Amino acid sequence: MKRLKYVNLVKAREVLSSHLLSKMPETLVQRIKDLEEELEELKSQLKQTNGGQMESCPSPNEPTSSSKKGKKAVKERTFDFTAHPRRHVALRLAYLGWIYQGFAVQENTDNTVEARIFEALLKTRLIQDRQSSNYHRCGRTDKGVSAFSQVITIDLRSSQYGGGLGVTLPGDVGAKKKDAAAPELPYIKMLNRVLPRDIRILDWAPAAAGFSARFDCQSRTYRYYFPRGALNITLMADAAKKYEGTHDFRNLCKMDVGNGVLQFERTILSATVKPVHPERTADPYDVFIFELKGLAFLYHQVRCMMAVLLLIGQKLEAPDIIEKLLNVQNNPRKPQYSMAVDYPLVLHDCHFEGLSWRRESEERNYVLSALQQHWTQSAVRAHVLQGMIQGLEEATGELSSNRCWLVEGSRQRNYRPLLERPCCESLESRIEHFVKRGRLEREDGEDGRSEMVHKGKRSKHFHNSTNSPVEVSNPSPE
Amino acid sequence: MKRLKYVNLVKAREVLSSHLLSKMPETLVQRIKDLEEELEELKSQLKQTNGGQMESCPSPNEPTSSSKKGKKAVKERTFDFTAHPRRHVALRLAYLGWIYQGFAVQENTDNTVEARIFEALLKTRLIQDRQSSNYHRCGRTDKGVSAFSQVITIDLRSSQYGGGLGVTLPGDVGAKKKDAAAPELPYIKMLNRVLPRDIRILDWAPAAAGFSARFDCQSRTYRYYFPRGALNITLMADAAKKYEGTHDFRNLCKMDVGNGVLQFERTILSATVKPVHPERTADPYDVFIFELKGLAFLYHQVRCMMAVLLLIGQKLEAPDIIEKLLNVQNNPRKPQYSMAVDYPLVLHDCHFEGLSWRRESEERNYVLSALQQHWTQSAVRAHVLQGMIQGLEEATGELSSNRCWLVEGSRQRNYRPLLERPCCESLESRIEHFVKRGRLEREDGEDGRSEMVHKGKRSKHFHNSTNSPVEVSNPSPE
Repeated sequence: MKRLKYVNLVKAREVLSSHLLSKMPETLVQRIKDLEEELEELKSQLKQTNGGQMESCPSPNEPTSSSKKGKKAVKERTFDFTAHPRRHVALRLAYLGWIYQGFAVQENTDNTVEARIFEALLKTRLIQDRQSSNYHRCGRTDKGVSAFSQVITIDLRSSQYGGGLGVTLPGDVGAKKKDAAAPELPYIKMLNRVLPRDIRILDWAPAAAGFSARFDCQSRTYRYYFPRGALNITLMADAAKKYEGTHDFRNLCKMDVGNGVLQFERTILSATVKPVHPERTADPYDVFIFELKGLAFLYHQVRCMMAVLLLIGQKLEAPDIIEKLLNVQNNPRKPQYSMAVDYPLVLHDCHFEGLSWRRESEERNYVLSALQQHWTQSAVRAHVLQGMIQGLEEATGELSSNRCWLVEGSRQRNYRPLLERPCCESLESRIEHFVKRGRLEREDGEDGRSEMVHKGKRSKHFHNSTNSPVEVSNPSPE
Repeated sequence: MKRLKYVNLVKAREVLSSHLLSKMPETLVQRIKDLEEELEELKSQLKQTNGGQMESCPSPNEPTSSSKKGKKAVKERTFDFTAHPRRHVALRLAYLGWIYQGFAVQENTDNTVEARIFEALLKTRLIQDRQSSNYHRCGRTDKGVSAFSQVITIDLRSSQYGGGLGVTLPGDVGAKKKDAAAPELPYIKMLNRVLPRDIRILDWAPAAAGFSARFDCQSRTYRYYFPRGALNITLMADAAKKYEGTHDFRNLCKMDVGNGVLQFERTILSATVKPVHPERTADPYDVFIFELKGLAFLYHQVRCMMAVLLLIGQKLEAPDIIEKLLNVQNNPRKPQYSMAVDYPLVLHDCHFEGLSWRRESEERNYVLSALQQHWTQSAVRAHVLQGMIQGLEEATGELSSNRCWLVEGSRQRNYRPLLERPCCESLESRIEHFVKRGRLEREDGEDGRSEMVHKGKRSKHFHNSTNSPVEVSNPSPE
């Protein structure tokens, strides 16, 4: 019917342009009225469709209205932030990243964990805006990646007119002095009330001015969960040890030269493969953890390291492939391979010194309840599926070859060894590329060595208000 | 910007109507062109939004196009079913019911497993239409409930011009006799190619004419998966035994008098509670199965029985509550209580005699792969969540009270014993109600006893083309 209308429209137009003058203005006016009506119809349709879309697939845990409300509330009336103390604090948060496009805000999507956090901070009037909030994040997690212990530092509105660690008092506090004894604002409760259920603040800690979640982080621990299936766990556990130490990981990450990442040496403090349930044995449905502790990580580093471990566990590569990939003199170019999928990866811990975390135990119990409820669903579904698999195996009388489902892309029939595959561009040619495009420039560093300086805007996974223009050592973009 | 345009539009209109004649036609034509452009813009937006919607939330396993294609294909050309043999067969199928509104087709939704199955049967030309397909189903599973071994009987197009068990030959087979040796159509492959990935045909069996998945089913087995949490499993296992035998389950189901279900005696052959992993011990994250084998089940029967078991496992009710609820002389009216949630329930098996199932082992492997891939996701997510829970417990140094998440509705602070709660209407007053409304009528049965006869249309969970008008013994509507 729309289609039909449109055809008429075109006809009408021809008619008009051909014998224009012979037409009565009334006809034209009528035409305009018709068009206007059709416009209105389409507009209302457009409204409905957008509305319908939101109803038809809400982000499961996120109250779809929240963001709107948030912005609205901020507009409602101006809130005098200068009349309140500010406090520099660290917030420790957990989130399930499965439905998000990553932690860091991006230009090309609103669906990030950070976007939800700032909505909550604005809605609760704990900050005036992101720019003035002195915000730093510890780790940057990628699309689909979760975190149990992400840490951010930020200046929040405070009730401590009497001062305290990290507190900056407003100009005139005379009148307010009496509130000196008041307890601090219940940050955790305030934020968890307005955050989506899959993003939770766990603790907060007052922090000295200048303390940065990004630059004062001692180390970061990532976990990658995977089922045994047909994998040789012993091989993987031994091979994992080869990652430990300081190496050039350019063959085990996504080289991010375009964003000024030019230095690929990173230090892995420990790399282990351990079962979730130590008591269990040879069951292919046992689940294991590849746990990595390091000072800082490169983009996609853990998922590339896991992909190689999975090849070793499947006996498609010998364990010494790791030494070979870490030897960038012999293998300066990364062979093409698919990294491990995103959803089993968790930023499990960020280690800091000198922070005394404050917990709101009531809040802690709410968080536990939410996690247990969510766990019950996933665990029950997993067992329903396992019951079906076992039922089929019993029926056929043969165990199924539980292959590995954790690598992206399609699986080749005939395996091609990593070192026999085509390679990606070398670091040098990448640098050349960006220098030509004027996004990198050679400059003389203090020590006389020539250094690269990044120019121009950051790409999505590098959009970070706290970044220095030169991102030579990128703390944790996995 | 749209908004602005619209304002201009209104202005333009006023101007036009006020000094119409003074206007040059060119202005009007220009106006029309502008409006047409705006229309086009809105139309393309509308397209995008609709397109975007489909991309942004596809039914996870279902190729959104399939149903459309299916209908189209059927229209394309008329297919001469009378020229082909028909074969009466049983199909055994597994499905994950989590995203469906139940197995049986309903008037108020298209999102049922049966609807997808008939789309596939029509698309593959295995049937001409449902009405003529001689279709019977074994069990009816409710919204959110899965099945590992659902069975249906139906007449399908066949390649067996030479005849065979269940085969009806078309009028003139002379010319086709040569095909006598041809293998039967690959039913499983044909259907699984077009079915959503969460609905799979497992086997098929030729069946004698008149063999009915519904009336020839010997028994049905349901499984309900649940985690230990803080439940006392021993209490539950002992209590479950009390369900065994033939009892009146009117206090442990949803009484469906309006659909002519008037007889609530059912026979439970076995009721057990067993761990999924026998070797594990006191871990609150161990998962157990409440398994029920019975001849036939009432609407919501398993979920009501499970709800009572959960109360016993939480020590909110004594095990003898089961005898009390089964004693309909002393307790003729069902106390009000919430049943257990839907997603852990699986129609695990349907038992038949005299069927020799035929398997396509290649297909079987595809099904196994799909299940394993799905299992990997659920299991990994469950362990990510469990890792966070244990992380929080370690941090607080106290184990969390892993409460039971499997009962619908909110949880009261102070528990009110079942037998002290308000009761639902009695069977007699329900019958009275429907007799008054003319949906039930008293009639003299052959044996002289007065019987109820159901009148009028069936409710959603009773829409079933194969039902006799009187649904006195409803095979398995759980």
